Amino acid sequence: MPRPLELHRDRLLPAESTTRAIARELYDTVKDLPIVSPHGHTDPQWWASDANFGNATDLLLVPDHYVFRMLYSQGVAMEDLGIGGGEVDPRTAWRLFAERYHLFRGTPSRMWLDWVFAEAFGIEYRLDGETSDFYFDTITDALATDAFRPRALFERFNIETIATTESPLDSLEHHAAIRASGWQGKVITAYRPDPVVDPEFEGFRDNLQTLSNLTGEDCLSWSGYLAAHRQRRAFFAQNGATSTDHGHPTALTADLNALEAEALFRKVSAGAFIAAEAELFRAQMLTEMARMSIDDGLVMQIHPGAFRNHNAQVFAQFGRDKGADMPSRTEYVQALKPLLDRFGNDPRLSIILFTLDESSYARELAPLAGHYPCLKLGPAWWFHDSPEGMRRFRRMTTETAGFYNTVGFNDDTRAFLSIPARHDVARRIDCGFLAELVAEHRIEDWEAAELAKDLTYNLVKQAYKL
Amino acid sequence: MPRPLELHRDRLLPAESTTRAIARELYDTVKDLPIVSPHGHTDPQWWASDANFGNATDLLLVPDHYVFRMLYSQGVAMEDLGIGGGEVDPRTAWRLFAERYHLFRGTPSRMWLDWVFAEAFGIEYRLDGETSDFYFDTITDALATDAFRPRALFERFNIETIATTESPLDSLEHHAAIRASGWQGKVITAYRPDPVVDPEFEGFRDNLQTLSNLTGEDCLSWSGYLAAHRQRRAFFAQNGATSTDHGHPTALTADLNALEAEALFRKVSAGAFIAAEAELFRAQMLTEMARMSIDDGLVMQIHPGAFRNHNAQVFAQFGRDKGADMPSRTEYVQALKPLLDRFGNDPRLSIILFTLDESSYARELAPLAGHYPCLKLGPAWWFHDSPEGMRRFRRMTTETAGFYNTVGFNDDTRAFLSIPARHDVARRIDCGFLAELVAEHRIEDWEAAELAKDLTYNLVKQAYKL
Amino acid sequence: MPRPLELHRDRLLPAESTTRAIARELYDTVKDLPIVSPHGHTDPQWWASDANFGNATDLLLVPDHYVFRMLYSQGVAMEDLGIGGGEVDPRTAWRLFAERYHLFRGTPSRMWLDWVFAEAFGIEYRLDGETSDFYFDTITDALATDAFRPRALFERFNIETIATTESPLDSLEHHAAIRASGWQGKVITAYRPDPVVDPEFEGFRDNLQTLSNLTGEDCLSWSGYLAAHRQRRAFFAQNGATSTDHGHPTALTADLNALEAEALFRKVSAGAFIAAEAELFRAQMLTEMARMSIDDGLVMQIHPGAFRNHNAQVFAQFGRDKGADMPSRTEYVQALKPLLDRFGNDPRLSIILFTLDESSYARELAPLAGHYPCLKLGPAWWFHDSPEGMRRFRRMTTETAGFYNTVGFNDDTRAFLSIPARHDVARRIDCGFLAELVAEHRIEDWEAAELAKDLTYNLVKQAYKL
Repeated sequence: MPRPLELHRDRLLPAESTTRAIARELYDTVKDLPIVSPHGHTDPQWWASDANFGNATDLLLVPDHYVFRMLYSQGVAMEDLGIGGGEVDPRTAWRLFAERYHLFRGTPSRMWLDWVFAEAFGIEYRLDGETSDFYFDTITDALATDAFRPRALFERFNIETIATTESPLDSLEHHAAIRASGWQGKVITAYRPDPVVDPEFEGFRDNLQTLSNLTGEDCLSWSGYLAAHRQRRAFFAQNGATSTDHGHPTALTADLNALEAEALFRKVSAGAFIAAEAELFRAQMLTEMARMSIDDGLVMQIHPGAFRNHNAQVFAQFGRDKGADMPSRTEYVQALKPLLDRFGNDPRLSIILFTLDESSYARELAPLAGHYPCLKLGPAWWFHDSPEGMRRFRRMTTETAGFYNTVGFNDDTRAFLSIPARHDVARRIDCGFLAELVAEHRIEDWEAAELAKDLTYNLVKQAYKL
Repeated sequence: MPRPLELHRDRLLPAESTTRAIARELYDTVKDLPIVSPHGHTDPQWWASDANFGNATDLLLVPDHYVFRMLYSQGVAMEDLGIGGGEVDPRTAWRLFAERYHLFRGTPSRMWLDWVFAEAFGIEYRLDGETSDFYFDTITDALATDAFRPRALFERFNIETIATTESPLDSLEHHAAIRASGWQGKVITAYRPDPVVDPEFEGFRDNLQTLSNLTGEDCLSWSGYLAAHRQRRAFFAQNGATSTDHGHPTALTADLNALEAEALFRKVSAGAFIAAEAELFRAQMLTEMARMSIDDGLVMQIHPGAFRNHNAQVFAQFGRDKGADMPSRTEYVQALKPLLDRFGNDPRLSIILFTLDESSYARELAPLAGHYPCLKLGPAWWFHDSPEGMRRFRRMTTETAGFYNTVGFNDDTRAFLSIPARHDVARRIDCGFLAELVAEHRIEDWEAAELAKDLTYNLVKQAYKL
Repeated sequence: MPRPLELHRDRLLPAESTTRAIARELYDTVKDLPIVSPHGHTDPQWWASDANFGNATDLLLVPDHYVFRMLYSQGVAMEDLGIGGGEVDPRTAWRLFAERYHLFRGTPSRMWLDWVFAEAFGIEYRLDGETSDFYFDTITDALATDAFRPRALFERFNIETIATTESPLDSLEHHAAIRASGWQGKVITAYRPDPVVDPEFEGFRDNLQTLSNLTGEDCLSWSGYLAAHRQRRAFFAQNGATSTDHGHPTALTADLNALEAEALFRKVSAGAFIAAEAELFRAQMLTEMARMSIDDGLVMQIHPGAFRNHNAQVFAQFGRDKGADMPSRTEYVQALKPLLDRFGNDPRLSIILFTLDESSYARELAPLAGHYPCLKLGPAWWFHDSPEGMRRFRRMTTETAGFYNTVGFNDDTRAFLSIPARHDVARRIDCGFLAELVAEHRIEDWEAAELAKDLTYNLVKQAYKL
């Protein structure tokens, strides 16, 4: 007899009964607010083509590095899951996952997936070896229906705005197609220039050439390169972008003079540089991007601290984004000073800081955001986008930065079907945190009600200019 | 209709009902104990002159960098608050604050200020734009009365002892005036030699000259410089000082031999030094101060880890202490070893360690204090002097250092009117923490009762020799 | 009238009533499971000889650095406790401890000791100055009885397996004697090669000579040295070892080629090396040990990050393990990469990582263990083997690594009588954590029941191949 799958209405709310009652009341006021998703990695082609998704494995397993990294850590070969493009029966791959679903106990993936299973697909039994085929069939069948096409799901999920993330080399054709189609869903882009900003990115020099071709600028000259950025940023803004995004190994910034910057660019664009010069160039480019943001109003997001592709063998065989990125210690106070010395007091600049190093929350990020007018704190990110992670974020940032130097929730995901679940987790955890403050008489109930709506809806729209 | 302002009797006590009942009982036994404030930044002139304070803005807003840093982070110009000495109508400045009081939700400033409003001034409505003028007038009027003069407040607040902090260059005339006045309030000083110890302090060389003039020693010679410290320490001790205080960028100590130390002093006193030499000199001076403490019995406080004046533009325009100091990562285990190798086992030495880097609580500070007889842990400091911060402090230090290697509470503030509120927060949080230990049967109720009194009153008197 | 000593049945379970009821039910299912102790520092001679332990002070005070470090931190001289072999009346030393037992409030030592007093010895009054002699006599008398001989306690404590830790230079004679005796208690060894792997270990060169003598290999040649390791590992495995253990200052690994490794070995074995070369050699040896583990199946444990013998004067007078080891910041993501690049995807390799730096839990360790098939997370260690420490471990690792990349509990102790108490604390804290997940509807009750047994019993057997 399979185990029943039911999502409890009070899940993730604090256990203590007074607090839970307050939290439930707050949650009821925000649970149905529209989803605003200002940063993520969904594919705009989905809504451009509105084609059906494929089978359960291809949609939910193969692209989700949260899921397959855990399976890999427990001895499941990635080839056997169909990752890397080998020939694998998707039903068999699904079974490998289903039989090991207990590995996810206590993880956010488990909560997101259970929501997808129960709410998106209406499944009433828990996933395990016994129900594996039933799951595979139920999901795969549903995906073939109109109700599960990308635009229908977008509307069903009550998404007000979603931002994708594209490189300056992207044509944004899917965004154009979405607008041309007459469909009203608001899918915007964001400017992520890492492939043409990071000298250590795969194909960096070729990317500069491509950027030249796209823009008509000479991107092997410093002035042409900067002009190309300005041009592409304007083009992205025309396609709805309100933000840029920078995924650097560290938060280092620099403020070289024009001659030094140009000399450095000559080195990195020629491919003749050492690691420290690549780092300095990325650092300088954050300051250049800030300068452009002051002009064109795009909000900067800085996502530092990931050691990408840590597993050399997995990278060689399977490529990027295979669950082998690792957080590392990240310093902000010294690192951001050059940029802040230059632009930190300019009211036109807005920078949203993220971290994979929670030790920086109370020590560096909250103090910085609690002083500099240009700085705001992004929500708990990636490995920390989880119930405990979000609680730590609020507990460690609120007392110094307050709530109003934060920017609501980011789902930051490519797992489209889990987006409502992720926003729901954030709403539940925030309402629980607010309820604790009320229960300890640190804020009033009417303040918590205002805050619940601000954290869910108002702050993200304001911070991302949506 | 304005919102009512009422301080709940159970504020900050744990929500869980059994635990709250225990916490409330503990709190009732300590809430009326006298305030012992062994470290802070109030102005001794207040009690020397006993002059009335000015208006609400000048007392509560302009000097409080916790408050104006938050307003600045949200786009309020410091000039418009009257900071930096410009001509601003204080009522208008107060309104800028009042209209944005929601920014402080969830911060300790909000709890401290509400106490000041409700308890010190008896105001019954919440601060917002609507009540702004009412607040300004009520507070300003009250401040003109005898009941709100510094000595009256000192007595009303039940302060047993308060320590101010002065530089060796200070004449301590206000402390002398207080004693000469016959008033019985115990206001003592503490020896904070940063201006003559830190080669990078503004005016360091002039300060050495002033120190020479004050002491009759030649403070441009190493032996004269050390003799001047000894002389001033003795003078401070005569003015009630029982402690010194050292606000260095790091916790680095050094133990140079006499020749090396003298050569280093020659460099820094001549102004011909690099940053590493300034750091080494500060490091050596901690060890010199420890040597003097062994002789004269002054307790050392080390407050490391603040990156001062991080915002270059704000520093240039407004000077020090304008809410732009940032915590930074701080190492203790390696840094303190030279001093500890020299004096760490001397029973005459007592050093109280503080941190702005909470990751050091469980990893470094509690293990150090749980072994070395000379080391004690200061309470959660500055950005961490808050309900969540204090809870983290207890949770992360108690299991290794115990309670008896801690030293009670410091308010560390210049915001005189908030001192009772700050001590009250500490008492509530400590009683809540103890109640949790009782509720989980980790200590007995009678032990918690002893501890509540120790943490509130006994340990601070013992640690600071008061 | 002495204070009663009673251990509450619900101690350490969450205070909130719903959660406590769930936790209690879970705990009841695991509290009587056998103890599996895969890593610790008990003395195998105890079970080989089965001789009675001595008096209370010699058994419970003198060898327990958790206890005497706290007393030392509060001014008790180690000589007066009988540490360092001086002539001290054990009853007088015990009194120094008894009179200061309040210092341990809130520490795990207090909970472990109370269990030993109440459960192992049946004492019904609390330890203090008044009961000091009663305690000393009761314990000392009991220790002279058959019921308190090592084998009897082993059986009474329901220990299924215990691992001791020996150097490659150890003859393992006690393990042989245990097996030869016919007694059925399972006492196995573990391979801890620090004395012959760490060039900075006291007597390193002499140790290499001893290793040569023991093995017949030339341990001053690189190949002979490696062969000697292989030989001793095999010998240890014959004596039950299933694991090795490496206590390095950092987690650094290296992957030198054979020529480089040999050249480095020549330097360190000749004693002609600088600190960085010692560090590199230890780093290389972790990779060599991994290579051997792939062949012989021994599980590697890495315990990095202790700054040993921090107090120079205490080390000079009293030697190692005198409560003066301090944790330090520990990096894993960069440090382990050379080893992982070489062997990280080999299904035959298993490495259990420990830390004294809790900031690495969520940032580095959980992400590493949640990806690499060879990596698992050891439990909260040493300073963090405590109720709050264990809670932080679960809260900060579970969401990324899950439960199944952890390995159950280690007591890691030489304090034999406290072993059941330590395992009991772990069981209570884990059941409390699981109960919180159930109460917040993050997992189901039947899942928590499976997990409670896994965390207590199944995972440790699997991870350590027991």
